[in-house]
Parts: sequence; structure tokens; C-alpha cells
Amino acid sequence: MKPSIAALFVLVALSNGEMVRAAESTSADIRVNGERLNATMEHMKTFGMSETGGSTRVAFSDENRVALSYLSSLMLEAGLMPRIDVAGNLVGRREGKVGGLAPIVSGSHIDSVPNGGHYDGVVGVMSAIEVARALHENDYQLDHPLEIVVWSNEEGGKTGSRSYMGSVEEREFELKSLGEKTIGDGLRFIGGKPEALSENVRQAGDISSYIELHIEQGAFLEAGNTSIGVVQGIVGIRRWNITVDGFANHAGTTPMDQRQDALYAAALLIAEVRRIITAEPGRQVGTVGRVKAFPDVPNVIAGRTALSLEIRDLDMDKVGTLFERVRQAGLRIAEETDTRIVFDQYYESPAAITDERIKNMVQESADALGLSAMHMPSGAGHDAQSLRDIAPIGMIFVPSKGGISHAPSEFTSPEQITNGANVMLQTIVRMDQQIR
Amino acid sequence: MKPSIAALFVLVALSNGEMVRAAESTSADIRVNGERLNATMEHMKTFGMSETGGSTRVAFSDENRVALSYLSSLMLEAGLMPRIDVAGNLVGRREGKVGGLAPIVSGSHIDSVPNGGHYDGVVGVMSAIEVARALHENDYQLDHPLEIVVWSNEEGGKTGSRSYMGSVEEREFELKSLGEKTIGDGLRFIGGKPEALSENVRQAGDISSYIELHIEQGAFLEAGNTSIGVVQGIVGIRRWNITVDGFANHAGTTPMDQRQDALYAAALLIAEVRRIITAEPGRQVGTVGRVKAFPDVPNVIAGRTALSLEIRDLDMDKVGTLFERVRQAGLRIAEETDTRIVFDQYYESPAAITDERIKNMVQESADALGLSAMHMPSGAGHDAQSLRDIAPIGMIFVPSKGGISHAPSEFTSPEQITNGANVMLQTIVRMDQQIR
Repeated sequence: MKPSIAALFVLVALSNGEMVRAAESTSADIRVNGERLNATMEHMKTFGMSETGGSTRVAFSDENRVALSYLSSLMLEAGLMPRIDVAGNLVGRREGKVGGLAPIVSGSHIDSVPNGGHYDGVVGVMSAIEVARALHENDYQLDHPLEIVVWSNEEGGKTGSRSYMGSVEEREFELKSLGEKTIGDGLRFIGGKPEALSENVRQAGDISSYIELHIEQGAFLEAGNTSIGVVQGIVGIRRWNITVDGFANHAGTTPMDQRQDALYAAALLIAEVRRIITAEPGRQVGTVGRVKAFPDVPNVIAGRTALSLEIRDLDMDKVGTLFERVRQAGLRIAEETDTRIVFDQYYESPAAITDERIKNMVQESADALGLSAMHMPSGAGHDAQSLRDIAPIGMIFVPSKGGISHAPSEFTSPEQITNGANVMLQTIVRMDQQIR
Repeated sequence: MKPSIAALFVLVALSNGEMVRAAESTSADIRVNGERLNATMEHMKTFGMSETGGSTRVAFSDENRVALSYLSSLMLEAGLMPRIDVAGNLVGRREGKVGGLAPIVSGSHIDSVPNGGHYDGVVGVMSAIEVARALHENDYQLDHPLEIVVWSNEEGGKTGSRSYMGSVEEREFELKSLGEKTIGDGLRFIGGKPEALSENVRQAGDISSYIELHIEQGAFLEAGNTSIGVVQGIVGIRRWNITVDGFANHAGTTPMDQRQDALYAAALLIAEVRRIITAEPGRQVGTVGRVKAFPDVPNVIAGRTALSLEIRDLDMDKVGTLFERVRQAGLRIAEETDTRIVFDQYYESPAAITDERIKNMVQESADALGLSAMHMPSGAGHDAQSLRDIAPIGMIFVPSKGGISHAPSEFTSPEQITNGANVMLQTIVRMDQQIR
């Protein structure tokens, strides 16, 4: 393989301290090999192609394990030394020029939901390996070590990335994963050691910075005909179980004014959730996705109705304020309908705000590459959020056709992927230079 | 047993043609034996008493069959000749004075829902037998034959009474009843002949008139401190399956203004149903009792929601008008929410209006007995409705404590039952005299 111009500069630089500045400035010319990147994307599809053309490469499946072997070989070609850590993460590391620095980490995941798509997660993994390979081919060595991580079990609970923050509980090992195995058995199956998971815990400073490229899973970039999403953060999520208690009674003999209809009260609340969420400007979302009435028959007034409520926003205070309004609406509706409405929070994931410097670097990199960019929150969760208290984090989005995700029709074009990978490459170079 | 004064008059009457009028006028003094009536009510509780103190005497159970034997013996004591007909109805007949007249029929049912109450149906059966016994004891013979019928399988589809109108379909025999048996096996078990069911079909004129006493299963009588409900008719019922189709999507990445949320649209429709039903004066009711969202998880916007809709009123035109308003609201909501809403009627039971003359007789009988009475529709279905096209029908209601029915706490006091039975006795005497 012929060394590129940039690599030659690096060779000169290494032999001559005075040339370092000149060599580094040429990093702006380094590009990923888009054809090769997209060929590896295509090859990844073969590990768990579903009957409908989608991807069923759930965490801890045979397909998942075989794909990790393939990625190990790619890592070696990219100058990365691969290993499986105790959480089943595949970590490929290349040392940096300057001793004693914490690594720059980039990664994503390759596990899918059942009959999901071929891009969610995979784009970030393949791009990160290609970025490392491009740097390696160009003999461009970062000051920091570079670690490319394929996080384990993202779709089934972010086990791999959460091991870094030490939040994986022992009881999770007993839970069934999205495939046949328990999470504990699954971790062992791909080479992890669940009993030694605490070895993975990172403290603030253990990682210099983190960057993840991912498909948007929404339609803002496509609608704006925009190449790059500069992610402002991953929204926080709070979820509640709502129980509406009324009184089950005969739908024929109970007059309208004597009903305590739990499903009617629930319907008013569902309508209020949307009204409250949309009354404010901003990108917050609120969803009631689950409903169950009791006894759930046509000729009995519902005595009880159970609902789920989820509110997401980058600003957790706003989530709290919006919920408080929903709760107040619930009290009012309970009063009006002679029912009782109880909210029980069962899940909270704090927002993960991306680093201001990294956002700027992503924007600058896109600008330098002549690519349009848009700042946006991530409404979906990502491995990056697990590192929010450990390192400055950044995320880059590429467009999703039709905003579709977790489905066989998930699609991002080869050009869009290549653009994202080049932005990531340039951002990593900037992170290396500007974040210590 | 000492013959009553009235019976003595009858004895005199029978021996002297001139006294007939005088004897008949004394029918106004005939009363049921309330103590005996309520003792038989108590004894009926023993056939299928549930652990919670309610009644689990579902159609075609051993308890159902044993109770029918008990009722046969009571019928014999009451001067009624019992037989089981092809539909498993227990029919006790006493001949009338005048040849060639169609019978006056009174009846109800003794089958319960699982863990139901001891009064629904039973009050009407025990009162009818007691009325026959009181007439017999008083040697008061009606002009018409009198038939007391214990209709089979009321709670599981009114099989017995519907056999009179010829609307029981063969496929119903294969359906599981509320107990273990199919309806066909159950009919055979209690002595019926499902293959010969057509023998039971009655034409208009085959029955002179029909009267049924029943608990209200609502709270109007109790609220009005009223003894007797003069039933205006049994409401008609129409039921629809409603399907709301939206688009299932990620609850985090799909902005509020790009959602096609089927559960939100369904909630608006549920609220509209109540608004539309209550916007009109009257006793109509409309209920959404069943709901199912798909995929029914907290973090996915519902792509589809299925609802039931039921509207009941005495006036089927009104039911039609109200449904049309709901349908129009559905179209408007579908437009607003970018969803599709489809209504599919799957059940219709026409209203059964009671005979004007019988209503007046019930009112007069209550007046003569010094009992308060209130005119009211029946929101629940009853065997009486099966005879709407065959005979003039009437119904008498007695109060239900707290309006509760189909539950162990169902209750009507002995005095209230005795009042109802006495009103039925006097009404039957009037029907005998005034309806030919």
C-alpha cells in the first residue's frame, strides 16, 4: 500500500521535531476510504440477516459472536490491538504519541433488536474502525491512545457501556436478554466475566473524551437536507405507571351521571398529556404508549385503567415541570370524574449533555468538509450517555431515511455514512489536539 | 292450611254461577305468602353458594340441574304441572277456566354469572311460582292457562327464551357456556333436545301475554325510595369494534407534530362519546369498555388502538342518531390526528317496548297495594325481550341495594320481594281479565 502524502509528512515530522506542526496541519487532508467502509457495512449485514431482509443480530447470539471475530480482524488491519473486556466489550487500542494521557474513546454497538435494521449502532462501529484505519494508513499517530469500543448489549440495556459507570446490578445477570440467554450467560458466551465486572469501572479522567457516530433515528436531517447532526445531548427520560381507579359497573343500568369510568378519566388524561407537552416551545416529547382497562369488556364500565407515561427532554427541570402539570391535570380529572389517579415513577435516565468544545469541533469539521450541519438533541438513548460523568462526550448524527429505525427499512446511504465518518475523523483529530 | 276468606268466596262462586263476579272481585284481596316466598329464596342460595357468599350457579352446572328439581317440586305444590322443554326450560302449567285461550306466561331465570348474586333472575322465578301457589291456594283459577317458565342459560345468551323466537343458531350449540360444557351438551344435560329446538318456536298469538319480575340492577328505585319499577321497555343495544390506525414510531425521536398516535386519537374519541351521549336529555347510555393499544409499550407511539363502543336506548332511532354523531366525531378526530378510524358494528339487539296496557296494570296494581311506583327503562337485557314479537310483554322491577348486580353483594330485601310478587299477582289477574 502506497503511503499517502500526509503520511510522508508524518514520517518527515517524526524525524524532525520542527516539522511536527506542519505534519499535524496535514491531518485536515486525511479522509476515510468510503468504499472500504461501506464494503464492511455490507459484510456486517451477513451476520444475522433476517428473512425480511432486516437484522436479527441480538446481543449474545451466535451471529453477534461471529461478527465480533470479524471486527477483531478488521481492528488488527486498522492497527488496533483487540481484546474482549469483562463486560463483553470488544476494545481495539492503538497507543498514542504522548505518554500518560487517557485514551480518546469512540464506539457504538452491533447488536440489533429482533428484525431490526442494519445501520443502528453499526454505522458508528464501522466508521470508528475505518477512522482508526485511515489514521494508521496515513501514519497519523494521535497524542492520546485511541480506543475503539464495540459496546455489548446496547439494545438490551447498555450493559457494556454501563459497566464503565458501575451501574450494572448483579440481578441483571439473571434477566433474559433479547435472545435466548440470560445477560450473565450471554456475557460469558462472548468472552466477558460478569463476576469481575467492577474491573471495568472508570473514574472521571480515565477517558480523555468520547465521540460516537450514530444514525439519527428521526427525520430532521432528511427533512432539512442536512448531512450532519451536531448532537446537543441525549435527552433525559422519566417514566411513570399511572393507575386510574373508578368503579366497575353495568354499562346498561348505570346512568351516565353516576359513573366512575376509569377509562374515560384515562382518556381525558391522555389528551391532557399531549396538550401540556405541546403548549411549550421546544423539542420535549411526552407519550402514553401502554393502556389496559379492567375488566376490559364492552358491556362493563372500566373500574380501573392502567397507563404508562414517558416524558423526555434535554432539560430535566423541564421534564419535572411538565410532569407536575400532568399530575395537576390528573388531580383535576380525578375530581371531575369521581376517580382516583396515582402516578408511580419507575424509571429515570438523566439527560447527558454533550461537551461544548466537542460540539464546536463537530461543527468545524463539517464546515471544513463542506458539509451542512444542524444542532439537535438525541431523542433516543445511546451508549454515549453512560459516559456522561466520566468524560466529555460528543455525538455525530447522520440521516435516517424516513426517520425509520429498528425496522428492516432502516437506511442511511453510503455517501452519508462516509460523510459522517470523515467528520468523526476530523473531530477526533481536534479532540486529540484540543482536549487534555 | 286454613282456606283464606278469598278462597271461601271462590268456593262459593264455583258452586253458584251468580257469584262468579263477586268471587273475581275478591281477587284483589289475594296476597302471596311473603314468608314462604323468602324461605324459598333462601333455599335457592344453597344451590351453588360460592366461597365469597355469592352464587356460582352457572347454566348447565350440577347446581343448576339440582335447583331445577327443587323448582319442579315447588311447582307441583303450587298446582303447576312441570316439564322440561326442548330448550331446557322448566315450564309449569296450570290450565285455565276458558278453553282455547293462549297461556299467560311469567318467568325469569335461575342461572347466575360466576360468583354473581342470589337475586338476579331468581326473584322473578320464585315470585312467579309463589303467585301461582297463592292463586291455587285461593282456588282462584284464571281464564287463561298459566305457564311459569324457568328460562335456560339467560346469562350465557338467553338460549331458552330465544328458542321461542327461533333465533338460536345451530353454531351456538358448539360454543362453550359459562361453565365447562358447550351449550349443546348443557341443554342435553338439563333435559333439553337441541336437535329439536325448532319445536319451541312460538308465533304471535301463541302467548296471551308475558310478565317478568326482576331486580332493577340499577339504583333509581333505591334513590327514589320507590317500591316498584314500571318498566317502559328493555333498551336496544348496538355494539361496534372501533379500529384506530396511526403509525408506530419511536417515542423519543418522533417530534410531537409528526406523530400519528392511535392511542391519542382513541382518547379523543372516548371523550367525545361521553360528550355526545350526555349532550341530549334522556336515559341513553354510551360506553367504551375495552381498549387495546399496539405494540402497547411505554416507549413506542401506538400504531393502532382497538376500542369497543356500545350505545343503548329504548329508541333505536336515537341510538342511530347518537352513533352517527360519534362517527362524525371519529372522522373529524382522524383528520386532526392523521389517523384512520373505522367503525364495525358486530352486535345489535333491538329495543323491546312493553305493552301500554300491562304498564297501566302494573301501575294500578301498585296503587291498589299502596306501593310507590316509578316508570323506567331497563338498561339491562332480560328474557322478556325475546318475546317482544310474540306477545304483549310487561316487566316489574324491585329495588337493588346500591344498584349492585352480578356480584355477591347483590341484595333486595324480603319485603321488597314480597311487594313485587304481590304486584305481579295483581297484574296477572288484570292481564287475565283485560287481555284477550
